[in-house]
Amino acid sequence: MLHLLSPRGFKAGAAHAGIKTTSSPDVAMLICDVPASAAAVFTTNKVFAAPIKIGRQNIRAGRLRGIVVNSGNANACTGPQGEADALEMCRLAAGAIGCNAREILPSSTGIIGRLLPMEKVRRGIDLAAEDLGDSPEHAGRFEQAILTTDLRRKSAATRFRVGKDWVTLAGVCKGSGMIGPRLGVNGRMPHATMLAYLTTDAKIDSKMLQKILLDAAEASFNAVTVDDHTSTNDTAAILASGLGPAVDSRRMIDLFAGAMDEVCQTLAYKIAEDGEGATKVVRIEIRGARTDADARLIARAIANSPLVKCAMNGNDPNWGRIVSAAGLCGAAFDPEKAELKLQRVAVFKSGRPMRFDAADVSKSLDAKEVVVDLNCRLGKSSATVWTCDLSKQYVTINADYHT
Amino acid sequence: MLHLLSPRGFKAGAAHAGIKTTSSPDVAMLICDVPASAAAVFTTNKVFAAPIKIGRQNIRAGRLRGIVVNSGNANACTGPQGEADALEMCRLAAGAIGCNAREILPSSTGIIGRLLPMEKVRRGIDLAAEDLGDSPEHAGRFEQAILTTDLRRKSAATRFRVGKDWVTLAGVCKGSGMIGPRLGVNGRMPHATMLAYLTTDAKIDSKMLQKILLDAAEASFNAVTVDDHTSTNDTAAILASGLGPAVDSRRMIDLFAGAMDEVCQTLAYKIAEDGEGATKVVRIEIRGARTDADARLIARAIANSPLVKCAMNGNDPNWGRIVSAAGLCGAAFDPEKAELKLQRVAVFKSGRPMRFDAADVSKSLDAKEVVVDLNCRLGKSSATVWTCDLSKQYVTINADYHT
Repeated sequence: MLHLLSPRGFKAGAAHAGIKTTSSPDVAMLICDVPASAAAVFTTNKVFAAPIKIGRQNIRAGRLRGIVVNSGNANACTGPQGEADALEMCRLAAGAIGCNAREILPSSTGIIGRLLPMEKVRRGIDLAAEDLGDSPEHAGRFEQAILTTDLRRKSAATRFRVGKDWVTLAGVCKGSGMIGPRLGVNGRMPHATMLAYLTTDAKIDSKMLQKILLDAAEASFNAVTVDDHTSTNDTAAILASGLGPAVDSRRMIDLFAGAMDEVCQTLAYKIAEDGEGATKVVRIEIRGARTDADARLIARAIANSPLVKCAMNGNDPNWGRIVSAAGLCGAAFDPEKAELKLQRVAVFKSGRPMRFDAADVSKSLDAKEVVVDLNCRLGKSSATVWTCDLSKQYVTINADYHT
Repeated sequence: MLHLLSPRGFKAGAAHAGIKTTSSPDVAMLICDVPASAAAVFTTNKVFAAPIKIGRQNIRAGRLRGIVVNSGNANACTGPQGEADALEMCRLAAGAIGCNAREILPSSTGIIGRLLPMEKVRRGIDLAAEDLGDSPEHAGRFEQAILTTDLRRKSAATRFRVGKDWVTLAGVCKGSGMIGPRLGVNGRMPHATMLAYLTTDAKIDSKMLQKILLDAAEASFNAVTVDDHTSTNDTAAILASGLGPAVDSRRMIDLFAGAMDEVCQTLAYKIAEDGEGATKVVRIEIRGARTDADARLIARAIANSPLVKCAMNGNDPNWGRIVSAAGLCGAAFDPEKAELKLQRVAVFKSGRPMRFDAADVSKSLDAKEVVVDLNCRLGKSSATVWTCDLSKQYVTINADYHT
């Protein structure tokens, strides 16, 4: 089984520092033995956490030695002290592995508006550095350490052959609530965020890496929504150790970009699957939209409609909510032309309801994945967005929990 | 007590036709004894119901004799038969009071994608016409007949003195779920919709009436959201009998517009109050935004965030969710400048958390109305949006119910 530390040159370590109330690890480091070519995309929320500010500065050189991350506290809306704390996290991690603090990317996820408990964080970084190793268990503990309200760890990996060698690409992520990432290259109390860290042993230029990451994020992390709430801390970063084959030809770049899409989309899917209170993944497939922007707009409008999400929770083939969500979002849409299928059964076509067995379709909606397939018949653009249903459990998690 | 039929010249009637499964009335008529100056605004959803199409045609002349409405079936996504049915509703109502079918505005609300049970509708219109009268009880039955998932009837009225006479303005509405109206003058299965009908005895030109209605709708119905889902059937219409004072001077127009604002905002507030599963109204007050559009965008982003709405349900002073919602919506926003108050207590200012007693603020959130007051300190624009909290009951209503 491939894992986060399968690509050559990576180690991870994690520790329980007591920032989270549970006994699971909450401080972790991912480091590269050599200076890695690196790229990252961050939240486009105008309210962004201190580690995002530092991360944006540190990624500029396109070179990193590692990532230091804590869960349980987002270090967002924390003013100058928050910034100082994020910088200190970098310094401590850098000191432990002998590099410059600017070669470390900091990340935080958890409660907004509270200062980091730095005594715990310092001890956590010390322990995580002592723990560094490249076993599957190390990868697993790193995965575990970045979680907040997530119920499951999330990882994905792939590799492709280059002559007798391989390029390996792996990633882990967290995310369950406050999920509506809008990552780009340009936050006190979300309790969740999307974080994704990827490793590869490909030898690749950081500018190319940045471009491939941005494209991959657009069709994966930026296409998943639980509650459409772009967090203050969303981050996706990749480190390329360069200890494997070079990715420099058109063909190699295509192969690598394909691997990135695969890993990022698998991770994004797992976020929808583990959405707060989710009982199923809902895949929204829009086809025949007039423009790409329209396709995305329609997909997101359907994916974020509480009415659609509740219907999915109740296995209700309530197609009117889907069609009306498409009509309200501002994109070009004509019900007289559109065709909607639920789990491959046509339910609405050319402005009229289709005859279908509601009990049968309802039964088919009681599945781990539901496919909503809307053909607008207005153009050639398409988009896919993943979401989950809206259950009472989501309300319980976000109402009964207290800051 | 003023009511819908207090303005001179109006009668209403209602009947139980059996379109809804309950025993309450589900077909109703509101008529004016004389040809009324009239105006209406309709949903801007690209998927709009048959009665919306007919209504848009019939309002063009700026003159109506009445409104015919049914609840329990939206007559949306029903193709040419749906249109024929909406036209027949107008013909039947017109026949009963002796006017042209084009002088009747049809409305429907309820399930999408099913043909109207016309036998029941025909009988309902006959009975409603027989029932016509101008008593408070008639007004009350009309109010009742337009409801779907609403738990409460909703009405508002006001009057202002003109010499020894009065101009009276009254209105009723329905709306509980699928509430995110975007009413304009253009525009199966929402189970709810926003409908509002207003009466006045003012003598006023229909073009002026249309302008005042549109302005009033913008600051009332278009500023209320339960689930941000613009329905296929949203309608607000006003009939002016002209049997009272003339509204033709600048001063009279201002007075009349003020009365419209008052009635429409009271009705909109009642929709938020009766939002599906609501335990409280949340009033979002945005001040100091750079532009009016920004103010509205920020207000809606906060009002529609499931995370904010769940926090409100749980009386959780989770201000990070509010600030981050402001930051994610695309409007100009700078957390370093902003100030946020919850129930008048400052919780966040100039990029930093304020010290406050969380238990005290939580207690203050346990109220019928919660005020979220965000000053962006970037400009002079402001906006108010009303919403409600998101409770498990909302999920129950929209998931467990089956089409």
